[in-house]
Amino acid sequence: MRQALNLARQGLGFVEPNPMVGCLLVRDGAVIGQGYHESYGGPHAEVNALESCRRANHDPNGATAYVTLEPCCHFGKTPPCTRALIEAGVARVVVAMADPFSEVNGGGLAELNAAGIETATGILEDQARELNAAYLKRVTAKKPWCIAKWAMTVDGRIATTLGQSQWITGETSRADVHRLRARCDAIVVGMQTVIADDPLLTARLATNNTKAQRTATRIVFCTQRLPPIESKLVQSAKQIPLLLIVSMAIENARLEQLETLGATVYRCHSSDRLQMVSEAMEYLGSLGMTNVMLEGGGELISSFVNSGEVDEYHVYIGAKVFGGRTAPGPIGGTGFPTLDEAAAVQLISLDRMDQDVKLVYRKSRQEAPTDKRSQ
Amino acid sequence: MRQALNLARQGLGFVEPNPMVGCLLVRDGAVIGQGYHESYGGPHAEVNALESCRRANHDPNGATAYVTLEPCCHFGKTPPCTRALIEAGVARVVVAMADPFSEVNGGGLAELNAAGIETATGILEDQARELNAAYLKRVTAKKPWCIAKWAMTVDGRIATTLGQSQWITGETSRADVHRLRARCDAIVVGMQTVIADDPLLTARLATNNTKAQRTATRIVFCTQRLPPIESKLVQSAKQIPLLLIVSMAIENARLEQLETLGATVYRCHSSDRLQMVSEAMEYLGSLGMTNVMLEGGGELISSFVNSGEVDEYHVYIGAKVFGGRTAPGPIGGTGFPTLDEAAAVQLISLDRMDQDVKLVYRKSRQEAPTDKRSQ
Repeated sequence: MRQALNLARQGLGFVEPNPMVGCLLVRDGAVIGQGYHESYGGPHAEVNALESCRRANHDPNGATAYVTLEPCCHFGKTPPCTRALIEAGVARVVVAMADPFSEVNGGGLAELNAAGIETATGILEDQARELNAAYLKRVTAKKPWCIAKWAMTVDGRIATTLGQSQWITGETSRADVHRLRARCDAIVVGMQTVIADDPLLTARLATNNTKAQRTATRIVFCTQRLPPIESKLVQSAKQIPLLLIVSMAIENARLEQLETLGATVYRCHSSDRLQMVSEAMEYLGSLGMTNVMLEGGGELISSFVNSGEVDEYHVYIGAKVFGGRTAPGPIGGTGFPTLDEAAAVQLISLDRMDQDVKLVYRKSRQEAPTDKRSQ
Repeated sequence: MRQALNLARQGLGFVEPNPMVGCLLVRDGAVIGQGYHESYGGPHAEVNALESCRRANHDPNGATAYVTLEPCCHFGKTPPCTRALIEAGVARVVVAMADPFSEVNGGGLAELNAAGIETATGILEDQARELNAAYLKRVTAKKPWCIAKWAMTVDGRIATTLGQSQWITGETSRADVHRLRARCDAIVVGMQTVIADDPLLTARLATNNTKAQRTATRIVFCTQRLPPIESKLVQSAKQIPLLLIVSMAIENARLEQLETLGATVYRCHSSDRLQMVSEAMEYLGSLGMTNVMLEGGGELISSFVNSGEVDEYHVYIGAKVFGGRTAPGPIGGTGFPTLDEAAAVQLISLDRMDQDVKLVYRKSRQEAPTDKRSQ
């Protein structure tokens, strides 16, 4: 199953909004076929594994299939995988976890059982859930996985007291950010960032990839102001999708002009930042987005953190010290006034990137402390 | 030489104000003796290596000695090592670097040469300089090595907007801080920290060590105010050294009372924070201190950073998110307003400590960029 999970991981950035899935076919202790879901719309992991098995002149009949997610039993972009496994004569199917997607949701396993195939589930389930956390959130909460990203100095500043910020981190970190952008469905910024940096928000380095990845929609959160016509975001809106999430407070006249220039507008039913966040997340979920990334500024990230919508943090620490009481930190707003309220996170990874450090955290699951106490 | 450096490192926290030194005796490609300087006042690395050689019934006659620092040639706490090496009949002495200490400074190598011993120097010199950076600063600049330490959240805050800060990091990190304290000669705090936390600033966990380490002097930087009589620092001043570095602005009357309670006072010739820092560092150097650690608050660290006196940063990052525009960062003051002025640092190490991360940086050496360009 560990091998199947590693296979699955290769689909990251290509399969969304589908889940990443890997499949291994084993007979007499030997792997006779393997595959993973490589890209959205393409064949599923099970079908790829069966094909690799036959290409190598092995017979899947009587084999055990290890799959990281319950096989699908519905006609979607491709025929159901349960049928492929049954027809191949597979004897046993071991899955890491059931698929909560409404059209599967246990139905895949039931169909295999009905066909006389032995099944088992819950093998490395935690790892499988972690791997597909974004997919699981999209399917169950109907909202995308939300990644907050920032670059800060050793002393936690995103700009000097004079507002200088380019660059805090080095080439390697910045290339990593572009890889992250290339696998996201959307990049969200606030108006502060549009005014301060006039960013283009594209994944510049993604073109070096062999497989074409998704083009992230650039999203601007507009509570009071709209991006200037001459901004790079608006000027490029006909080539690269630009979505404006606007509050009730914004007038229609300016919006029409921006729409003419290629922007799409989603108007919230509120002007309250936290309510706008919640509404926007539901809207992005309804568009089928799996991963969205917040790139700042501090007020935007604060609104998402305080709404409880941030699932993952990608923090790049550059080898610089800014100091200064008024130099801004990565999260503005009112924050969490007490330690009890503070958002607890779990450290997922730490990596050195030349002189920079990259830390990845995920929101702590509510169950975690209880689990510990019961041990 | 790499082995000798690893041996030397074991003296950390025990040998200061002496340098850490390791020595390996090699003949016919085999190590026949090894030693390091284990504690201040005890025998030097060369003597320990010769002893280990003889204990194992090897003859050092004709061997090569690898030493991480030029052997001493003066009578200090112990007789000169050059004499021990010459008497043992060592044929060749390879050192990582010359000792800039005024009573050695090339004299050790010269004496060996005069006795017909072949010498070589500059082997792994960079690593040897890094190992003994604190000693080298003490001997050349006559000031102690200055470590700034803080614990902050993922978003770079040392307290919530309401000032809550205990605890940002977990047990493992806090135990690490106590180990760090146990090898420092002094721990420096500002009056902000005394008022906010009423700390004791002792190395609580150091007592678990087999060898007794130094007891750090607690130092309070007093620009305008003095620590309250009832503070833990003052109340414990008769048991654990307490030094007050006070500005010109502070009246004598209160000082005398604090002295009666056990505090030592150093009065600066200035009330300017940066000038006070410079004066204090010279004074601590004159006391023979090798390592001093700044534990906050933000204004104190800011004064030292802006004076260019911080050599090393130990940053602990706890798995929490505070947010909030007004939540304090680790370095206050006016900071460096532009990127060009910002302090550049070099990443020395990154370590995971349960859910926390520890990052160590050193001040970038001025030569570094030039070296790069010339390659």
